[in-house]
Amino acid sequence: MTSSDQRPTRIVMKFGGTSVADLDRIRAVAERVRIERDKGHQVAVVVSAMAGVTNQMVGYVQALDPMADACEYDAVVASGEQVTSGLTAIALQTLGVPSRSWQGWQIPFRTDDAHGKARIGDVEGAALIACMERGEVPVIAGFQGVAPGERISTLGRGGSDTSAVAVAAAIKADRCDIYTDVDGIYTTDPRIVKKAKKLDRITFEEMLELASVGAKVLQTRSVGLAMKEKVRVRVLSSFEPETELSGSLVVDEDEMMEKELVTGIAYSLDEAKISVSRIPDRPGIAAAIFSPLTAARVNVDMIVQSVGSDGSTNMTFTVPKGDQARALAALEAARGDIQYGEIHTANDVVKISVVGIGMRSHSGMASTMFQTLAERGINVQVISTSEIKISVLIDAEYMELAMRALHTAYGLDGE
Amino acid sequence: MTSSDQRPTRIVMKFGGTSVADLDRIRAVAERVRIERDKGHQVAVVVSAMAGVTNQMVGYVQALDPMADACEYDAVVASGEQVTSGLTAIALQTLGVPSRSWQGWQIPFRTDDAHGKARIGDVEGAALIACMERGEVPVIAGFQGVAPGERISTLGRGGSDTSAVAVAAAIKADRCDIYTDVDGIYTTDPRIVKKAKKLDRITFEEMLELASVGAKVLQTRSVGLAMKEKVRVRVLSSFEPETELSGSLVVDEDEMMEKELVTGIAYSLDEAKISVSRIPDRPGIAAAIFSPLTAARVNVDMIVQSVGSDGSTNMTFTVPKGDQARALAALEAARGDIQYGEIHTANDVVKISVVGIGMRSHSGMASTMFQTLAERGINVQVISTSEIKISVLIDAEYMELAMRALHTAYGLDGE
Repeated sequence: MTSSDQRPTRIVMKFGGTSVADLDRIRAVAERVRIERDKGHQVAVVVSAMAGVTNQMVGYVQALDPMADACEYDAVVASGEQVTSGLTAIALQTLGVPSRSWQGWQIPFRTDDAHGKARIGDVEGAALIACMERGEVPVIAGFQGVAPGERISTLGRGGSDTSAVAVAAAIKADRCDIYTDVDGIYTTDPRIVKKAKKLDRITFEEMLELASVGAKVLQTRSVGLAMKEKVRVRVLSSFEPETELSGSLVVDEDEMMEKELVTGIAYSLDEAKISVSRIPDRPGIAAAIFSPLTAARVNVDMIVQSVGSDGSTNMTFTVPKGDQARALAALEAARGDIQYGEIHTANDVVKISVVGIGMRSHSGMASTMFQTLAERGINVQVISTSEIKISVLIDAEYMELAMRALHTAYGLDGE
Repeated sequence: MTSSDQRPTRIVMKFGGTSVADLDRIRAVAERVRIERDKGHQVAVVVSAMAGVTNQMVGYVQALDPMADACEYDAVVASGEQVTSGLTAIALQTLGVPSRSWQGWQIPFRTDDAHGKARIGDVEGAALIACMERGEVPVIAGFQGVAPGERISTLGRGGSDTSAVAVAAAIKADRCDIYTDVDGIYTTDPRIVKKAKKLDRITFEEMLELASVGAKVLQTRSVGLAMKEKVRVRVLSSFEPETELSGSLVVDEDEMMEKELVTGIAYSLDEAKISVSRIPDRPGIAAAIFSPLTAARVNVDMIVQSVGSDGSTNMTFTVPKGDQARALAALEAARGDIQYGEIHTANDVVKISVVGIGMRSHSGMASTMFQTLAERGINVQVISTSEIKISVLIDAEYMELAMRALHTAYGLDGE
């Protein structure tokens, strides 16, 4: 997306809970918005609830009824963003910036009626654009929308990122800046790999792979929406002064000048390994194992099948730790159908993924990974690959060693 | 108002901030509503914000800007009632009572655009009635409405009482029960006069006179609206079990079987006395004094004019303490026009009022007052009377003595 010649650059600025945690932070946000507007840009702001408020509201609801009516849950929980939107508009006004708050129903920001985790429908850009054309800064309550029947809806936890991208698409913004408490997207977790370096650009696809395996800077849904709507997203810190090089830009593949082979390394400790061994080899055995798991709503991720010395089959796969008990129960119930010998399960594993759109056009990326791990004596238990990702499951105690070694091997180390 | 034969009794139940102060209190409110509904009544509930929440929100706004935009003030402050309405609906659902929350804009509860102290316009009863006809209990966020342009508005502090009365009028309720932290309306302040007794019934007019001079159980505005719309209001405690005799009913004069001569005794410590003395007596002197006060937005209450021994005039009157400085400045500025000798001012005064619709048809009520006070050696400084009220200004240190003596003299003492 680029700015049309007829109008100023249009930017969405989204501030998360820690960025609006108290009145001083809200004043700082207003100052930041004023600076962007003073550049001649049209600015729309999207805000989360003040840090802790949403948890407090969810706590109230769950204390009354853990299975509370999702419509009422939404009415209660959406109040946090209402407060922040009003306070931020006031803070802007004190700086001489005309501003007003917008609730989901006022825009309207339409969603379906899946309360508590509503999907976004038509978001009207007209009123917000008119607001900006009048010289005002609209401050939009993130996370919330209006469902059919004029009920308040919410998008699910972290939904304000998705709100911001949806607003950016609706007003045809040139950029959607997501202000958070980190200063951008890194090649890997800097707490684990000291030499991790900030990425100036990353593609939507890479971001989706990195986010879904652990680099939780942006809500996965917001990245998917940005990709679909071709909204350029920038992630940057609200706690540091902005410069031209601030943050990381998440863009369409077309906008990447230079396609790095590997962009980043992610990890996930939320994996449980399940091995089903000594299964009589016969056609349809995979279906016999995985159909009961699907029926039990278990998300199976990595899968490897091997043949034992006696000709029987062993099947090893991973599931989210939260699904493990359900998976084991389903397999136990299906023991008669599958006729397996035994089940082994392990929690002390980690999934490490190497991600990069360059992999599409380059072969041999996996061998670097296997060789690097083999040199450190790290045993690879399960492997899975996609077009732009290679993942391995290894013993959890090797996590830091493996990540640092791979970070160096793929040439990602910074200063 | 009486119930039509075709439909069940319809009741509005309004719960103030202390009645919904925490989740346990909200559960107790839900239980109370369930009991009323189990009697076969159609019930609509109106709730305030949880005690302390509105103050917290006002504090946020004022910390950012004491003169904050009233539209944004309303968006922030109205959030408290939104939360309570949702939580109360959930609490009702846990008791098996179908329920949903209603925000001002959903009803719609229309107001004008005097944000922060909006006046009520058309309140639609149709959706709420349909909700009750379906067997649901609507839980309405009090205090808030929707202004022209679809902005959130609020009615001013204590506005939830007025919300409840407006909803009662809109849905043609048979009664509007205001649950609060006192168990009804008393003949006078029980903290001062131990023998004060609870009134079973009081007229709107009496309530207005008592409320405006200190008996702050119901917001004055709500009483005025109830009188205009002929809504029967009952005040009762949410902290005590309900019985047939609970609370006090505020009704139209037609509904009073027995008209007490005197219903209650109120006091106000918010009076400042100003005496302007040695004014040359001439026509139009009252206008010369009071026009500048009106221009300075000073509310003049009691007035007495006396003639001095030298033929000059003295004028004594009372103003709210908050207006005193402004009044003195205005008189000082007008000194040339008025040509008064000097000004005296006093703060250590109290206004005591005896109220009762029976006064309309009975003379001699004032003499009981003067005689009672004279017997105790209490000097009356200023007197004012209306159709149903006699007020005197006395030295503040006699307040308790005077109130107890008058309470006995007018036959109001309870057990």
